[in-house]
Formats: sequence, C-alpha cells, structure tokens
Amino acid sequence: MHVVVPYTTREPKSRLAGVLAPDERRAFARAMRDDVVAAVRAAGETPTVLTTEPLDDGVDAPVVVDDRPLTPAVNAILAEEAESAVGVVMADLPLATPDALARLFESDGDVVVAPGRGGGTNALVVRDPAFRVDYHGASYRDHRRIAADAGLSVAVVDSMRLATDVDEPADLAEVLLHGEGAARAWLTDAGFELAVADGRVGVARE
Amino acid sequence: MHVVVPYTTREPKSRLAGVLAPDERRAFARAMRDDVVAAVRAAGETPTVLTTEPLDDGVDAPVVVDDRPLTPAVNAILAEEAESAVGVVMADLPLATPDALARLFESDGDVVVAPGRGGGTNALVVRDPAFRVDYHGASYRDHRRIAADAGLSVAVVDSMRLATDVDEPADLAEVLLHGEGAARAWLTDAGFELAVADGRVGVARE
Repeated sequence: MHVVVPYTTREPKSRLAGVLAPDERRAFARAMRDDVVAAVRAAGETPTVLTTEPLDDGVDAPVVVDDRPLTPAVNAILAEEAESAVGVVMADLPLATPDALARLFESDGDVVVAPGRGGGTNALVVRDPAFRVDYHGASYRDHRRIAADAGLSVAVVDSMRLATDVDEPADLAEVLLHGEGAARAWLTDAGFELAVADGRVGVARE
Repeated sequence: MHVVVPYTTREPKSRLAGVLAPDERRAFARAMRDDVVAAVRAAGETPTVLTTEPLDDGVDAPVVVDDRPLTPAVNAILAEEAESAVGVVMADLPLATPDALARLFESDGDVVVAPGRGGGTNALVVRDPAFRVDYHGASYRDHRRIAADAGLSVAVVDSMRLATDVDEPADLAEVLLHGEGAARAWLTDAGFELAVADGRVGVARE
C-alpha cells in the first residue's frame, strides 16, 4: 500500500515553543517524521512524504511537494490514486510501531480511521474513491460522517500509539515513556527526562 | 477471571471541580464505574468493585470494602488470590469496551499492562503471585520494573480506550467523542457538548 506521510516545514510544532527553540522544534519534527517513515516501511508498506516545500534533510523516502493546505493536498493524492488503497499517516506520531500500523493497514473497511486525542484523525486507510478528507476541526467525527454519507464502511483502530500525536509539552512525556526511535533519542540527547510531581508525570530539562 | 474495579467515594474526580459540582462529580464517577463493570461482564469476566466504604448506590457487582489506599488494597487481593489470574481495571475508564478489555484479558504474559496517558497503569492482568502493584507516581514504568525484577514476562496492550482515564475537563471531550454508555449519557443529559475552537476540540455546557 502507498502510505502518504504529511509533513510541514512551516512553523512546525508551534505549541512546543515554550520548551523548544525554533531550530529544536524543526529537528524534533524531523526525528518524529523519520520514526514514522521507518515504521511504515517496517510494516511492509511504501511511504511517501507529502510536504509543503522541497526537503534537503536526508529524508529516507520519496517526496511529493504540494504547497496547498493539508486537506486539498491529501485529496489530490486520493483522486490521483483512486484505483488503489492509500494510507495517510501523520508525521507527528513517534510512538507508531510497525505492529500498531499493521493493525491499521490490515483492518477491513472502505475507510479505516485511527483517531487522535482531541477528535483528530491521526491515520487513515482509504479504499474507496468516493471518500475525501476534511482535516479541519473535529475531523474524526467529520470523517465518519463523510464515509456514512457516501455509504462506506468504517473501521476504527483502537491504538494509544496511533492516538498520540505530539503537539504539547505534556505529550513529550509519552515519547519518553513509550518511544523507541529517533524522537525519543532526540529528546534524551536534548536533556529531557521524566519528572513525577504530585503523582502526575511531566518532563523536565536538565 | 476475577476482575477488581477499584472505586473511591472520597472526593472523586477532584480535577473536574472547575466544571462539575461535588454531587455531579459523584454521579459522573458512578456512571463511569457502571460502564466499566458492564464492559468487564460483557467481556465474559467476573467483576468485583473494590471500594473504600460500603456502597448503597445500585452498583451491579459484589463489593469488597477496604479503607486502605489503592496499592495495599489491591496487593491484599493479589495475595489472597495468588493461585489464579486477577484483573485490575480502574473505574474511570468509560471508553473501555468489551473488545478492548478482551484484548487485555486474552494477552499472554505473566503481567499484562494497559498504560494510561501520563504514565499511569489503567488496567492490569496478574498471573503470577510474585507480582505486586505500586500505583504511586509513574506506575507504568514501575510495574514494568517490578515485573522484570521478579523475572516475569510483560505484555503491553496498545489501546486508546484503555489509555483514556477521565481526570480533567479535556478528557470529557473523549467521552463525548468515543463513549457508548452511561457516562456519555450522563454528560449529554448534563448539557455537555463538543466545542471546536481554533481547530482544537473541547467541551461546552449549555
């Protein structure tokens, strides 16, 4: 299956600005993307990075450049590849393992959705040309509605690993707890470690 | 399998105090507990509610009263039932479905862990008498270490539904998005609905 990994170089991970400098946010976003690309390939599928401008950072996959927003850029690929199944896996899922992705790729359904925390859509498989994405707002609910309106079957993948997109400082604790790849290594190299206070887990930087 | 559902009547869900009155927090905590008890039973297992004082609220399961903190109370049950497998499933997991719980109960391993967001341990299966719980702090990591120190095998269940314990207002959005039982019904009856602002999903109350 062709699996698209959307990745933006424009102000990546702005909600981490309180804990990471701009250069660091870019480097961490790259590390997360590289983890996702490696996991897709280890799951036996074929990744392509969909990005807003040409990349010159050692990305280990073919790159498709489309400077439009996420929704039209992904829909253009779905239209172009209407005859085959297409996967869409966000680049900020550093907990994605080959096993978690295999559960996504191998689930039956015209559309398979892995919801993100907060109602987003972190990963998708689309097997019917009638489906189109709409990533604005609570996209998990919207994607189910779009599929239902088109008479398509929907499967939902129940995965904490695929549900964990990394946007905010609290999410870094999840990477330290459960990550196994470049993103976790980047954080520990940058001096981050788990911090437990009042029975709640966060991160601290040395 | 005997499955213990720890449930406290002491200041339940205090981090929801900003959005729910004390009576409401108690009612919502009961609804979540009832969802968990029903899901355990629908998964084919036998629930018992472990609680800090006698219950008189229509709970649909046998009740064991132990006024000690969570860790010694659960360890007392593990010691008592050392000859058989025991499940421990927290009462604040209203997204737990029979399918998600079946993945927990049916995973091989001396210890099976479903991590919670933030490094907690939301659900466990214990099949070896050498294991003891320690719920203080980042218990997911501690439980893996305790198992490793005792030479026990550990399986981890990758489930967004079991990872979602409901503690904070943002967690209520997850219940509205993915809940299927009494807790979701309680929230909608109380006037909560999803609210999307700036592309992020929260809740609003009418």
